[in-house]
Amino acid sequence: MENTTQIAIHFYEDMTALDAVGPYQVLVLLPGAEVKLVAAKVGPVRTDTGLYLVADSTFTHVPSPDIILIPGGLCTKHVIEDKHTLDWIKAADKTSTWTTSVCTGALILGAAGLLKGLAATTHWNALSNLAQYDATPVSNRVVHKGKIITGGGVSAGIDTALYLAALVAGEEVAKTIQLSIQYDPEPPFNSGSPATASTATLVSARESLSKRIDKLNCGNKKEKDNQ
Amino acid sequence: MENTTQIAIHFYEDMTALDAVGPYQVLVLLPGAEVKLVAAKVGPVRTDTGLYLVADSTFTHVPSPDIILIPGGLCTKHVIEDKHTLDWIKAADKTSTWTTSVCTGALILGAAGLLKGLAATTHWNALSNLAQYDATPVSNRVVHKGKIITGGGVSAGIDTALYLAALVAGEEVAKTIQLSIQYDPEPPFNSGSPATASTATLVSARESLSKRIDKLNCGNKKEKDNQ
Repeated sequence: MENTTQIAIHFYEDMTALDAVGPYQVLVLLPGAEVKLVAAKVGPVRTDTGLYLVADSTFTHVPSPDIILIPGGLCTKHVIEDKHTLDWIKAADKTSTWTTSVCTGALILGAAGLLKGLAATTHWNALSNLAQYDATPVSNRVVHKGKIITGGGVSAGIDTALYLAALVAGEEVAKTIQLSIQYDPEPPFNSGSPATASTATLVSARESLSKRIDKLNCGNKKEKDNQ
Repeated sequence: MENTTQIAIHFYEDMTALDAVGPYQVLVLLPGAEVKLVAAKVGPVRTDTGLYLVADSTFTHVPSPDIILIPGGLCTKHVIEDKHTLDWIKAADKTSTWTTSVCTGALILGAAGLLKGLAATTHWNALSNLAQYDATPVSNRVVHKGKIITGGGVSAGIDTALYLAALVAGEEVAKTIQLSIQYDPEPPFNSGSPATASTATLVSARESLSKRIDKLNCGNKKEKDNQ
């Protein structure tokens, strides 16, 4: 009989859809995976570009997952200030095998006090924010310290999840998942990180992110319907 | 004033979540993008691994989008046999600027009669199925013929969408989107296509896909709640 691996992916308002769905699509294919999409309340959760993803579990349903994954989002302030969410992450981390984040999800792990004294990564535009949680910002794609794994921005979540899949189930399983989802990327441009993008693209991406954050009115949100 | 580009992404039961969300995350960031998540009925749609994504429009709401994108899924038979869906695709294609697919979404475009005499691509495991729609299977990542663009399996959707973003809004905009989502992939393994995967991995991926398709009982589904 297959062992079950319970994987909790945290859904919250204004997370980034691909931050959650990229790693989800890899981890759900692990043999024995039991994926729980965990939010304050069961039901549709609005992502930062408008698409709704549906949470199927509340924090109380999933107290001790084997794997915790916190996706990033344009607005994380309301999560970072939400005691209910941070308490769940802290408690779940006590018994988890792996505690992980993608993109600005690292700031939420940081706010839960889990990155103290550790090297960690996040979206390039938020790297400097890690220091306030006593973490050392590193611009690698995937940073693995003890049982904490942090991944870079948005689509880096797929790489992070494959790395994690190999740790959990071995390289051969991870490779099979990679082939199943045909993850054989060939971006048409070489513009995916500040190290390769032109200065004009970097300026333009910063402006675009900043406008989108303003539009979402991030300072004035709260985690809703906490019980 | 920005021009609006209306983008219709078709949601259907047992589509693959990342097939839809990968391109969505790119296209929604196009300046002036108005993304419609189109299904037979508004509301949550179950993907082939259990996650629900929420459709916000019906076919009748979106008769003439500028861009049509059909994601793939493990089960497409019920869509391919659904006159209502195919009629919408055929009609929408008459006025679209771009008609596109990711993964096995190409089979749906094929069933709508839009790939006749064209080169096209799809998930590696479904390539040979394109011939029944008089298309010529090509194992490229992205195949562009006239206004029809087909992309490879699952995560190839991100590449396809960036390619399309550059056609619609220019390379600089596409590069800015790529940097915003930090699409700078470095898969930990070189196992994302049959050309690079080992024979053992290929056998294992085929078995895994076949088991998942059996489990979904694909032959016995219908597009639901067509109006």
